[in-house]
Amino acid sequence: MDYEFLISDLNLNKSKKNIGTDKGLAKIGDGIVNLTYSVAKSIYLTKNNPNNTIVRTGKKVGKNILEVALKNADMKTFAKTRANAHDLADTVEALIAYVWLNNTISTKEIIDLLVENFSGNLYDRQEEIKSAILAFTNLLNHIKKFLPEK
Amino acid sequence: MDYEFLISDLNLNKSKKNIGTDKGLAKIGDGIVNLTYSVAKSIYLTKNNPNNTIVRTGKKVGKNILEVALKNADMKTFAKTRANAHDLADTVEALIAYVWLNNTISTKEIIDLLVENFSGNLYDRQEEIKSAILAFTNLLNHIKKFLPEK
Repeated sequence: MDYEFLISDLNLNKSKKNIGTDKGLAKIGDGIVNLTYSVAKSIYLTKNNPNNTIVRTGKKVGKNILEVALKNADMKTFAKTRANAHDLADTVEALIAYVWLNNTISTKEIIDLLVENFSGNLYDRQEEIKSAILAFTNLLNHIKKFLPEK
Repeated sequence: MDYEFLISDLNLNKSKKNIGTDKGLAKIGDGIVNLTYSVAKSIYLTKNNPNNTIVRTGKKVGKNILEVALKNADMKTFAKTRANAHDLADTVEALIAYVWLNNTISTKEIIDLLVENFSGNLYDRQEEIKSAILAFTNLLNHIKKFLPEK
């Protein structure tokens, strides 16, 4: 895709905070997170279904999951100072949108990475939260090298 | 992408209603619709911005917009009988998810098609609704040929 012009201002003036606190990026990222999570969860549940039936599902990823993932990946420096849980989740979404719009990572790569990091029984709410936190933590660790250091 | 296995049951038993009333597909489609609309709106606003500044934004597409688009494209036959507005919107989302998972249309193609069909001042709520209805109507007309006839 060729949508880098949507982040050319951020690429001209690259900084952790400029990218991590951009509200528009967070809105686009919200869409990427929810779509990739829904497809990844459908794939995982289909591949691990003892009845061999296909499962299609969708899920909004909770802000608390993204917040904890950002902390676990040690990337709170991308968020604004005195950020609350909602701000931290927005930062995760902004970072994912940034690398996606920059063609650093594709929708498919995000989906595949999430699927690889899922484990256990995703029908169990607590196990799903644990799996989702681990998956987004590893996604953040993966994209860290494509983000500015300052 | 290679996620056709997520719709292999629907491809084995292809019918308008099987695809158009699938609740899991609708959930995945919800993510596709919101992501592509957000990026398309950002592109349109950036390209038509008199100040030459970049606009990044996101938007959940209202159920009423999708409902009217389905009617305008004359595709209510994909929805369940006695469908309400919510059901009709779900049908639009299911159909979009089906062609997307089938690799018939890519995220980029959906975004480009939406941008091409936008017009007027999207900051005006009424103009945005008019533009969005036209864009989704044309998207549905475009994918119709990839969907079963019965």
